[in-house]
Amino acid sequence: MRSNATAQDVARLANVSQSAVSRTFTPGASVSEDTRARVMIAAKSLGYRPNAMARSLITRRSRIIALVMGYLENQFYPLVIEKLSQKLQKQGYHVLMFISDGDETDGVLDEILQYQIDGIVMASAMLSPDLARQCADSGVPVVLFNRVPDTSAFARHTTSSVTSDNREGGRMVAELLLSRGHKRIAFLAGLEKSSTNLERERGFSDALVQAGASLFRREVGHYSFERAGEAARAMFAGVPAAQRPDAVFVANDHMAIAVMDVLRQELGLRVPEDVSVVGFDDVPQAAWGAYRLTTVVQGVEPMVEATVELLHEQMQDDAQPRNVVIPCRVVERDSVRAARPPARRSPKTSARTKTPKPA
Amino acid sequence: MRSNATAQDVARLANVSQSAVSRTFTPGASVSEDTRARVMIAAKSLGYRPNAMARSLITRRSRIIALVMGYLENQFYPLVIEKLSQKLQKQGYHVLMFISDGDETDGVLDEILQYQIDGIVMASAMLSPDLARQCADSGVPVVLFNRVPDTSAFARHTTSSVTSDNREGGRMVAELLLSRGHKRIAFLAGLEKSSTNLERERGFSDALVQAGASLFRREVGHYSFERAGEAARAMFAGVPAAQRPDAVFVANDHMAIAVMDVLRQELGLRVPEDVSVVGFDDVPQAAWGAYRLTTVVQGVEPMVEATVELLHEQMQDDAQPRNVVIPCRVVERDSVRAARPPARRSPKTSARTKTPKPA
Repeated sequence: MRSNATAQDVARLANVSQSAVSRTFTPGASVSEDTRARVMIAAKSLGYRPNAMARSLITRRSRIIALVMGYLENQFYPLVIEKLSQKLQKQGYHVLMFISDGDETDGVLDEILQYQIDGIVMASAMLSPDLARQCADSGVPVVLFNRVPDTSAFARHTTSSVTSDNREGGRMVAELLLSRGHKRIAFLAGLEKSSTNLERERGFSDALVQAGASLFRREVGHYSFERAGEAARAMFAGVPAAQRPDAVFVANDHMAIAVMDVLRQELGLRVPEDVSVVGFDDVPQAAWGAYRLTTVVQGVEPMVEATVELLHEQMQDDAQPRNVVIPCRVVERDSVRAARPPARRSPKTSARTKTPKPA
Repeated sequence: MRSNATAQDVARLANVSQSAVSRTFTPGASVSEDTRARVMIAAKSLGYRPNAMARSLITRRSRIIALVMGYLENQFYPLVIEKLSQKLQKQGYHVLMFISDGDETDGVLDEILQYQIDGIVMASAMLSPDLARQCADSGVPVVLFNRVPDTSAFARHTTSSVTSDNREGGRMVAELLLSRGHKRIAFLAGLEKSSTNLERERGFSDALVQAGASLFRREVGHYSFERAGEAARAMFAGVPAAQRPDAVFVANDHMAIAVMDVLRQELGLRVPEDVSVVGFDDVPQAAWGAYRLTTVVQGVEPMVEATVELLHEQMQDDAQPRNVVIPCRVVERDSVRAARPPARRSPKTSARTKTPKPA
């Protein structure tokens, strides 16, 4: 059962001031090791625990950050939950999960704002632009994760965001594929209106055009595994070799894996001998031996670092919103054909480069 | 900025009682549609939002459930976060994330108990048995997810749990492999002391013994992708065909995928022609075309259902703890050789059975 000991009881037993007790239980507050030790011992023997909720009514700080997410099917998002939770936990904050299916976002927001949370991280490319504005409107700091504010002046002036350099990433993919001599280059889009897809596609198309090339084929996979498979069938099934794409940039790894499955398991095509495939994100599965997907690395760690920094910044009343862009880079594995001569590394070699045998 | 409107202001404007306002904002409380509508309109026009934290001090209900997790690398756990959050959200509860690396569990618990949470779900096979007892000790309802209480009478009488029928699952795998004529059957263990591994291995070994067979080889992968790969090398690398296992039961899918990568990409062995592989969990990746892993289905949905039910049960003071066991079943894909004649379905066929072409 819960103990009824008060901070006063603890202070008396530990023979310290009551403020010393509260500082001991306030993450980040300064207190001598000796005092902390005495307080902890006294608290333990009395079964005392500070009530973070009661404290939040006084400090106006609940030390809770709301994390709004769409689907977790794409392995990139579980990584974000893990890294963000760990990082905030080290600072005495915790993540309150809100799953939004993209339609119920308004209802979700009303729920969020019933908690006296210190900030909101919106980590989904699938949320309605409206939600960002409503959050900002509520006076709770909001950081958009992996998406940018909608283009309204209002949103741009009230909402911070962290993204990787999606446009530059798309550009790098186009340059890679062109450098390997690909002539019939396709794009498989995610959610067409999401900022991640818009930026990746723009950088990709711009680079093609600047090289005097053009997009050979385009389909839409909506960031869904199933629909990406269907898009791949529409692009490749029953199309003669000379008329199908010889390379495809897929807007994220999650869809790229579905595309590789369809190409190899259903259509009997080889990757990269028949078709080069490039993804985006570098989720752990992209490195798995059966896929060895060449992709663009979105650094979860630096993105989470920047998000936490922005949250703290925005908790200050006079803070201006900022949009942080994290550089990204291409990691080459085995899903893009090598520069001529097309000497593909054998599976054995490529696998060994991934997981060295134990000494 | 936050509005300062009170429930009283809303009641006055909506011309309803203050209790009608509070019932409107209390999930599950009964209030007529007409009253609710008038309250919502008044609240919106005044920018009023109930403060869940303040309410929690009165009701002793924060409507927050702490979810303690180890690593999210295994895709089974993100599924749990998603399903559990969605289910609780529908009931007006939300999940507060606590990531534990298994060593810091005590520190995590102290943090958890600073929030006036309504319950704790411990969803990790990697947490110390001690933590379960400390939670129960604190008087907060605890439901162990995918693990059982330690064997102390104390834990058994204070802690509820939800698991799938791991022992029966292990037994089903043994029977499947025996029915396919396998003679040299190996087991690749997870964390040896975790209840999931102990139960799966016991059911597996019992069934082998009862059939007059015995375990041919055993290695330990600690539920880690890297270490499972190393265990597979120890089991198969450089071993002549006649002396290596012809089938291996891997204690979860996450490790089984690492094993398949090593077998095929590094050692050039075919699955299932040279080695049959079976996993446990049925994570989404097990169905991916490159793996098509035969595995034991742990039903996340029924497990989450039972967890939420137990939480509500345990919030009643006089509740007795219960241990709920969810039945599991084998889903056959392509990683176990067929009954003789060994006619493996072609990749094309097997892929089509997974994702039918759109009409």
